[in-house]
Parts: sequence; C-alpha cells; structure tokens
Amino acid sequence: MRAVVPFDAAAPKTRLGPLFDADERGALAHVMLEDVLDALDGAGLEPTVLATADVTVPAAVQVDGRPLTAAVNAVLEAAAADAAEVLVVMADLPLATPATLERLVEPSAELVIAPGRAAGTNAFVCRHPAFRVDYHGTSYLDHLAAAQAIDASVETVDSFRLATDVDEPADLVEVLVHGASTRTGRWLADRGVELAVTEGRVGVSRG
Amino acid sequence: MRAVVPFDAAAPKTRLGPLFDADERGALAHVMLEDVLDALDGAGLEPTVLATADVTVPAAVQVDGRPLTAAVNAVLEAAAADAAEVLVVMADLPLATPATLERLVEPSAELVIAPGRAAGTNAFVCRHPAFRVDYHGTSYLDHLAAAQAIDASVETVDSFRLATDVDEPADLVEVLVHGASTRTGRWLADRGVELAVTEGRVGVSRG
Repeated sequence: MRAVVPFDAAAPKTRLGPLFDADERGALAHVMLEDVLDALDGAGLEPTVLATADVTVPAAVQVDGRPLTAAVNAVLEAAAADAAEVLVVMADLPLATPATLERLVEPSAELVIAPGRAAGTNAFVCRHPAFRVDYHGTSYLDHLAAAQAIDASVETVDSFRLATDVDEPADLVEVLVHGASTRTGRWLADRGVELAVTEGRVGVSRG
Repeated sequence: MRAVVPFDAAAPKTRLGPLFDADERGALAHVMLEDVLDALDGAGLEPTVLATADVTVPAAVQVDGRPLTAAVNAVLEAAAADAAEVLVVMADLPLATPATLERLVEPSAELVIAPGRAAGTNAFVCRHPAFRVDYHGTSYLDHLAAAQAIDASVETVDSFRLATDVDEPADLVEVLVHGASTRTGRWLADRGVELAVTEGRVGVSRG
C-alpha cells in the first residue's frame, strides 16, 4: 500500500499565533509531520511526503506545488493507473499511532475514512480507481457522497486520535493529555506549554 | 454488568444559549439521554439513569440529588460491595452507538476509559473495588493517576464518538455530520439547525 502524507511547507497555522511566532509554527508543523511518519513506520508502512516544496525528513519526498486537492488527486490517479491501494494521512495528526493507523488499513472497504472534527477528512484509504478528493468545506460528507456516486463501499473509522488535527490552541490540550511522549508533546513541553485549568475549563498556557 | 447514566435533570447547558432557550436546552438534554439509552440497549445492557431528580425515561431511574462525583462514587461503592462490574456513561453523548460501547466493554482491564475532549472522562468501565471518580478539571488524567495509585490495570478506548460530548454549538456540528439519524439529530433538524460553512469553517446555524 502506498502511504502519502501531504505537507504544506509554508504551513501557516495562523490560529496558533497567540502561542507561537511564525518560525515556531513552522517548527511545530515539522515535528507533527515527524510524529505522523513515526506512526506510519510503526505500522509497517513506507510513507512518501507530498510536499509543496522540498523538506528534510526521514522519508521519501515528492514535491508538488499545487493546492492540496489537486496534489492528492494526482496521487490517486497514478495509483489507479497502477491498481495500487493508497493511504493518505494529514501531517498535523501528532496523536496518530501505529495501532490507530492499523484500524484504518484493516477494513477491506474501497474507501475507509477517518473523519476530522467539523466534517474534515484527516486520513483515508482508497481502493477504488475513480475516487477523487475535494478538501474544501465539509469534505467528509462530500467524500461519502462521492463514494456513493461511484458505488464504492465505505467504512468510517471511529478514532479520536485521528480526528484530532492541530489547528488552534485548544487542540494542543489533546496533545498534552494524550501525546506527552510524542515529538510534538516534548516540543511543546520544551517551550513551556502546559495544561491550564481556569474556572473548570481546560486550556493551555505558555510559561 | 451494571450500566449507569448520570443525568442532571436541571442540566443548564448554558453554552448552547446562543441557539436554544432554557426549555429547549432541557428538551435537548433529554433526547441526548434517550440516544445514550438506545445505544446501551443496542449493546445488550440494561441502563439505570442516575438522576438528580425524577425523570420520565424508558429505563430504571435512581434519584440522587448529590453532585456528580459523589453520586457516581456511591454507585461504585455499592458495586464494589457486590463485586459487580460497572459501566458509567455520560448522558450528553448522542453519537454513542452499540458498537462503540462494545469497544468500551470488551477489554478486560480493571479500568477502561473513553476520554472526552479537554481531558474529560465521558465513559468508563470499572472492575476494581477501590476506584473512585473525581470529575473536576482534568478528570481523565486524574483517573489514570487514581488507577495507578491502586495498581488497577487501565485501557483507554480511542473513540471520536465517545469523545464528543455536547456542550457548545461547535459540538452540534458533529451530531449533524455523524448522527443525523439519531433522536438528537432529528430534534436539531426539526428546529432548523443545520451545517453552515463560512469562509471555509464549518459551524451551525438555526433557520
């Protein structure tokens, strides 16, 4: 199975601006990517990073400067031509583990999706030659509809770890709680980011 | 296995105030509870609703006016006296399904936890006589520590459905996306609540 991790080398992650400057946000995106690569490696997969520009990572890199949807669809087209299965995993899922990725790879459905919050598509396995992605808006629902339109069988994986993409400070709570020993968890700890409980609500603060 | 669903009959859910008045929020809390009861029923469990005041539901009701932590600990004490296993599931998890609850019941660990977002404890199975809860703050981490202190074996269940408790409008997005056919999903649809995509972000609006 081909395993592809799209990575926006310019990754702005601007919603993390209250905690990190632009350089730090770039470094954070990079350690999250490395956590995802570690998890794929642990699941016995050999990932290729599909990056918008060249990056230095412990994996093969394929550069495609196009937007996410076009770049992933090119991967799906190439796989269809070779009758290959493809796993696509977003790069901002530091809580991904080998076990959760195995739950994604295990079902035999032609499309297996791990939804993100707010109807996102955080990871999927494609075994149907005609399936293509569209990451805008409610992509999870759109992908279900696209699969139905081509009569592809679908399975959804119920995983909190794969649903947790890191976009805003509240998401870092989950990394501190469930991923303290990941690269991302240690990166956050090194920068003084820790859980903060205020009036019963749990957030993060940077010391 | 005993199955208990704590339910605050006064459930304010004030963070849903932008969408629903107090009576509606009470009705929403009630349909969410019924979805949880349906899921337990589908998993072959016979739940008891542990309510702060008498409620009319298709299940046994035990009234305990104390705060959540004290009421649940009384259940755990009684179960320990009878050497019984206990499952405790929060009432605001409308995405719970029989399959997800079976994943929670299946492991043999003395404490099996389904964490909520922000370090909450949304559901757990207890098979250790000395385990007690404390729902304040980072309860998931506190419960892990409590289990370690009494040498109880622990397993965490990785479920987005069980992690999704409904507290604020963004949580309703998940119900509309993943639970359209639940009682809660239909209740929301009947009140004109639907997905709204604004500038690429997915939220809800009420028509």
